[in-house]
Amino acid sequence: MCESAAYILKEDKLERVMENVVNVDPFEGKVYLTDLLGEQKIVDGKIKEIRLMDHKIIISEAI
Amino acid sequence: MCESAAYILKEDKLERVMENVVNVDPFEGKVYLTDLLGEQKIVDGKIKEIRLMDHKIIISEAI
Repeated sequence: MCESAAYILKEDKLERVMENVVNVDPFEGKVYLTDLLGEQKIVDGKIKEIRLMDHKIIISEAI
Repeated sequence: MCESAAYILKEDKLERVMENVVNVDPFEGKVYLTDLLGEQKIVDGKIKEIRLMDHKIIISEAI
């Protein structure tokens, strides 16, 4: 399976915000995350980096 | 394996720009893509959406 976990980078620390993320939609300063079950979370910030082999989606916090 | 293909959305059509993408780094209006072999491509645009189950990274063209 190819789902990833989403993390937000806060003060140099990664804080996990969602597991099993399958869809990622950045839009106007927010990142919309959807998991395998269709649950959605909206995070203030923007995509900083994606590491598919590590299953990591890293979001930098909106300032 | 969890690598994806990256596409750029041009005039409502998806044009494939890279296969086997493992790292994605959006930065200042460009998206830096790295594939399994470490090759890099830089695309003008921003991440529009990511569909991990479809193995698709969709970039909207910089205007």
